Amino acid sequence: MLVVMQSHATPEQIQAVCARIESLGLKAHPIPGALRTAIGITGNKGAVDLGILEALPGVVECIPVSKPYKLVSRDAKPEDTVLRIPTPSGEVVIGGDKIALIAGPCAVETEEQLMTVAERIAKTGVRLLRGGAFKPRTSPYSFQGHGEAALKLLAKARERFGLGIVTEAVDHESLDLVERYADVIQIGARNMQNFSLLKRAGRAKKPVLLKRGISATLDEFLMAAEYLLSEGNYNVMLCERGVRTFADHSRNTLDLSIVPAVKKRSHLPILVDPSHGTGLRSKVLPLSRAAVAVGADGLLVEVHHAPDQALSDGMQSILPSELEQLVAEARQIAAVLHRSVN
Amino acid sequence: MLVVMQSHATPEQIQAVCARIESLGLKAHPIPGALRTAIGITGNKGAVDLGILEALPGVVECIPVSKPYKLVSRDAKPEDTVLRIPTPSGEVVIGGDKIALIAGPCAVETEEQLMTVAERIAKTGVRLLRGGAFKPRTSPYSFQGHGEAALKLLAKARERFGLGIVTEAVDHESLDLVERYADVIQIGARNMQNFSLLKRAGRAKKPVLLKRGISATLDEFLMAAEYLLSEGNYNVMLCERGVRTFADHSRNTLDLSIVPAVKKRSHLPILVDPSHGTGLRSKVLPLSRAAVAVGADGLLVEVHHAPDQALSDGMQSILPSELEQLVAEARQIAAVLHRSVN
Amino acid sequence: MLVVMQSHATPEQIQAVCARIESLGLKAHPIPGALRTAIGITGNKGAVDLGILEALPGVVECIPVSKPYKLVSRDAKPEDTVLRIPTPSGEVVIGGDKIALIAGPCAVETEEQLMTVAERIAKTGVRLLRGGAFKPRTSPYSFQGHGEAALKLLAKARERFGLGIVTEAVDHESLDLVERYADVIQIGARNMQNFSLLKRAGRAKKPVLLKRGISATLDEFLMAAEYLLSEGNYNVMLCERGVRTFADHSRNTLDLSIVPAVKKRSHLPILVDPSHGTGLRSKVLPLSRAAVAVGADGLLVEVHHAPDQALSDGMQSILPSELEQLVAEARQIAAVLHRSVN
Amino acid sequence: MLVVMQSHATPEQIQAVCARIESLGLKAHPIPGALRTAIGITGNKGAVDLGILEALPGVVECIPVSKPYKLVSRDAKPEDTVLRIPTPSGEVVIGGDKIALIAGPCAVETEEQLMTVAERIAKTGVRLLRGGAFKPRTSPYSFQGHGEAALKLLAKARERFGLGIVTEAVDHESLDLVERYADVIQIGARNMQNFSLLKRAGRAKKPVLLKRGISATLDEFLMAAEYLLSEGNYNVMLCERGVRTFADHSRNTLDLSIVPAVKKRSHLPILVDPSHGTGLRSKVLPLSRAAVAVGADGLLVEVHHAPDQALSDGMQSILPSELEQLVAEARQIAAVLHRSVN
Repeated sequence: MLVVMQSHATPEQIQAVCARIESLGLKAHPIPGALRTAIGITGNKGAVDLGILEALPGVVECIPVSKPYKLVSRDAKPEDTVLRIPTPSGEVVIGGDKIALIAGPCAVETEEQLMTVAERIAKTGVRLLRGGAFKPRTSPYSFQGHGEAALKLLAKARERFGLGIVTEAVDHESLDLVERYADVIQIGARNMQNFSLLKRAGRAKKPVLLKRGISATLDEFLMAAEYLLSEGNYNVMLCERGVRTFADHSRNTLDLSIVPAVKKRSHLPILVDPSHGTGLRSKVLPLSRAAVAVGADGLLVEVHHAPDQALSDGMQSILPSELEQLVAEARQIAAVLHRSVN
Repeated sequence: MLVVMQSHATPEQIQAVCARIESLGLKAHPIPGALRTAIGITGNKGAVDLGILEALPGVVECIPVSKPYKLVSRDAKPEDTVLRIPTPSGEVVIGGDKIALIAGPCAVETEEQLMTVAERIAKTGVRLLRGGAFKPRTSPYSFQGHGEAALKLLAKARERFGLGIVTEAVDHESLDLVERYADVIQIGARNMQNFSLLKRAGRAKKPVLLKRGISATLDEFLMAAEYLLSEGNYNVMLCERGVRTFADHSRNTLDLSIVPAVKKRSHLPILVDPSHGTGLRSKVLPLSRAAVAVGADGLLVEVHHAPDQALSDGMQSILPSELEQLVAEARQIAAVLHRSVN
Repeated sequence: MLVVMQSHATPEQIQAVCARIESLGLKAHPIPGALRTAIGITGNKGAVDLGILEALPGVVECIPVSKPYKLVSRDAKPEDTVLRIPTPSGEVVIGGDKIALIAGPCAVETEEQLMTVAERIAKTGVRLLRGGAFKPRTSPYSFQGHGEAALKLLAKARERFGLGIVTEAVDHESLDLVERYADVIQIGARNMQNFSLLKRAGRAKKPVLLKRGISATLDEFLMAAEYLLSEGNYNVMLCERGVRTFADHSRNTLDLSIVPAVKKRSHLPILVDPSHGTGLRSKVLPLSRAAVAVGADGLLVEVHHAPDQALSDGMQSILPSELEQLVAEARQIAAVLHRSVN
Repeated sequence: MLVVMQSHATPEQIQAVCARIESLGLKAHPIPGALRTAIGITGNKGAVDLGILEALPGVVECIPVSKPYKLVSRDAKPEDTVLRIPTPSGEVVIGGDKIALIAGPCAVETEEQLMTVAERIAKTGVRLLRGGAFKPRTSPYSFQGHGEAALKLLAKARERFGLGIVTEAVDHESLDLVERYADVIQIGARNMQNFSLLKRAGRAKKPVLLKRGISATLDEFLMAAEYLLSEGNYNVMLCERGVRTFADHSRNTLDLSIVPAVKKRSHLPILVDPSHGTGLRSKVLPLSRAAVAVGADGLLVEVHHAPDQALSDGMQSILPSELEQLVAEARQIAAVLHRSVN
């Protein structure tokens, strides 16, 4: 934390700020400049909210310096975290030089729908299946998912096609169920700061895929992951899925620059969801290529064999034939980065 | 919903879109223009996700027309909803020509702190006390509130000073407790789309104060309220608390224009929180005046008798003496709008 | 500027950064912390772009500390700037305890239109007339203003009704004309960073009203004003007119919190334009009240006697009868702040 | 345009809106729905501002349907525009299956600097050189470019290394000079809606590279290009350079999804500037790869042989050795899309 004083701050005001800092058990380092004095602070373990200094006489502003996250930081663990997801057809590796693809329908609708899509997906070589059993929906009148029945269908598809299962939990009750049936627990964008749910997921025995909130900063995103690690779950992967901006040509603005930014700050792998990130089928392939090219550790893609019949998000689902093309292009671009898709 | 066709769309493409619409049980109304054809759709009860039409050949885009909310809409109830909050010192009225003030510390810290602030607040004539028992915090290492112990202190302040209690619930468990001890259940900005929590609050027997999410559109905000009403709880008040933008001169950008926008669309009362809306003590009074002037039905303000000792959000809390000035100015500006503070 | 080093930065890296700083003629102040070292920099007169330090080995980031503006700063001039605009009916004062109202049509259309509106405006007691002669329009096919012919009509309205004239210049040529005919030169939001135009306006002999760009930060806004002052024109007033955000319930999001923020940093007066700030007639009165309540030094409002016939921006223009109500409410709210409308 | 009526709008109100539409010379198409009536409008040539209908009794809102751009639209010209930039070493092609690279320093500083960088750039095979002679800077006290002297140095580099020249014009005077010395006239983001400058550039005899404004929507971006085409200049290429959002981990948020969006709406080529788009050297290569992968027609990259000595934007400039890697990766990824770098 750095406290910036007004240019006409008196020596008494500067001294008072230093005294206040020391009274909090911290150390003050005044830096007299030509125009104004700034005061550096060291020794803060994160317990003290230093914003209060901004209200002291003569202070212009307080500038945070240290980042508040610990366990997710590269300072804590310099080497990349590599996740290994067990599936009936062997481990899928996420991170390091391995890129993972996760594909499937937005929601599990019927057994026929799920098995049809899952079979097509398995044929492309993709080994992780996504599909919503609990759907957070803006409207109370929209389809909210089939719950445990959908989880059972996912488990069936798992065994039949050798696919690992990724699916979302929305509260404690659904998390208990997802933890039982699935291989990866997804926490959605709307729940990125549902801290009660994060703590529960941090105590789960399965890996967690944490989506970025629609207006989350990098720090907030990493702090949400910190909740998971601080409860003991180190098997965490992040996922960019687009942020909310003024731009109206796509549903959200996919922020690919967060991929290298996460990799600089944290050891956790980061995936990209181009389906929610754009909201439009015609943009899924271009942005999937871009995500692999920017260095993402995986993709999370919505696929439906009959998107215009889908109960939700049909307009952003690609066809199985488009998934084939996506897989081929992802492999080629991964090779340019000396990585491979598994 | 309106489907806009490309200027060179063929009659067959237009016909195919109409047929698809009719196959969904809806009615298609083609409108041939000089440049292109648009197709109006009627008969949709909200169950069908029409975005899928965007993927049909010849379609440029789909434009939603009808608003998805029902019970919160002025169409459903033209007259203003007026809430009556019972307190030991009589009802507090929110809405219509009455403006209500809610004040108190960010978090309940100690009995001495709470009683000191509550007494000062009661003396200004404010009759609703806010204070956090469960605190959603960005960092897992920050103070998270004293839980039920804090609720017991709030109940004690309630009886001693005749104040109604407003406090936040963050999950099902805390909501059970808040419903027991408090007069108004607050749902925070981070949980505005925690639909599982909204459904539980919709079944509660106490009024709910619902804060706008940090990047929620007007429609999403009203749809979150719709979750509450659709479960049977009609005692709902909304609260603007600032949105996230590029602007860096205040913590959030307080969006006062949503007040007349809500009043046009919905019958629900809307309050403003200038403390979180600005994040800075020096802006709380100016923005409080502005909120009353724009037509808000109340204010939610953080007050602390020693803000530089506060465990959280000290920099945005005003002093009891500033609250006195705020109350006086709110009364005078309310009178300009032919309203009164109660 | 503060340079933050990585927690595992070596002493050699820290020394190299300090050496680089000193080589630029500046002074380095290392602050060793528990986790990491930060390095304060003093002596920078603004000529050196210190962002380059971010690329040195061991550096995490560079944090700017000093604000780059000088002449517009309260550090340079602690007391409020008060502008006095001469009009045929006496001076209009802007700033200090005086609030000024500026009203008129979006564009000057015909002599009849302008005289009709101007007469109605003058009757309400408003003494500054706005009206566009040069209109920056998103489309090349939209009405672009009547140019010098419109300026002549404004000059005629000036003499007939005793009104000062405020009108926009969009390039050097139009600025020459506006400087000749008008009392205040307006620089629009789209030109806030048209530095060539700002330099020309800084050499003009008339006061300048500078609108905030649609996504300008406070610093950028004040730096644009600095261009004007640095060329010798100290008669500058700022104007907030809404910023671009994700919110879709009004054309722009009026950011009233910038009013107290400007007043803290700068001595310049700041007005608010609720017409462009909201884009909707029904929101102009509520937001006008809010702007006066938050402490703005004036309002810039679009008025048209027949808004549904207007050639541009009719939907955000209020009627002369609404202007009467606006003036009355502004006077009452100004009184609460111990100010008066002139 | 579609006018949405209130659910309780009377038949008289609906009729009045239709009458108003017809009085404007347009055609009204009422669409009665179960809940409410909507009214489609056809026949508008863009001259009428239909927003005024929003103020009529019984109207909820007006929804624009037709896009306002004409010459830039794919409706007007279905096939891709392919630009051919003549250089001393032959044509550079932009668009179609060809990708073009433009590289160079942010600003032309000295002859030695420019020749050193230009030689290194030419060796990588890049054939278009960028370099600022006129620099729009936030602060009036920052380096503003060497003007015509810099243009002369660029012309010298052109002849010596066979490079085409791309450089920015900021007003009429500088545009006259740039048109004389350079091969491509750049219009910067801050001037995207400087319509006076756009009209002048539309009459220039050289191709124009138009950068997206920092908060421009797709429609505004295309309308700015429409200004150029409507004055007769069809040699236009667009350039995405990042938009302003709440995100603070990069200087701007590079919006790659606009590339497929532009290609759907318009026939003009679109490039990407990853240097301004991220503001950080370490992100330039990853985002350059992503830009080619998403389908951009070219890259505009800042290169400096000694970035820590640069007079401006040093922290986002890459080294010549990094440019070599960028070129190699761009070639490989272009091949995945069946395109080639020239």
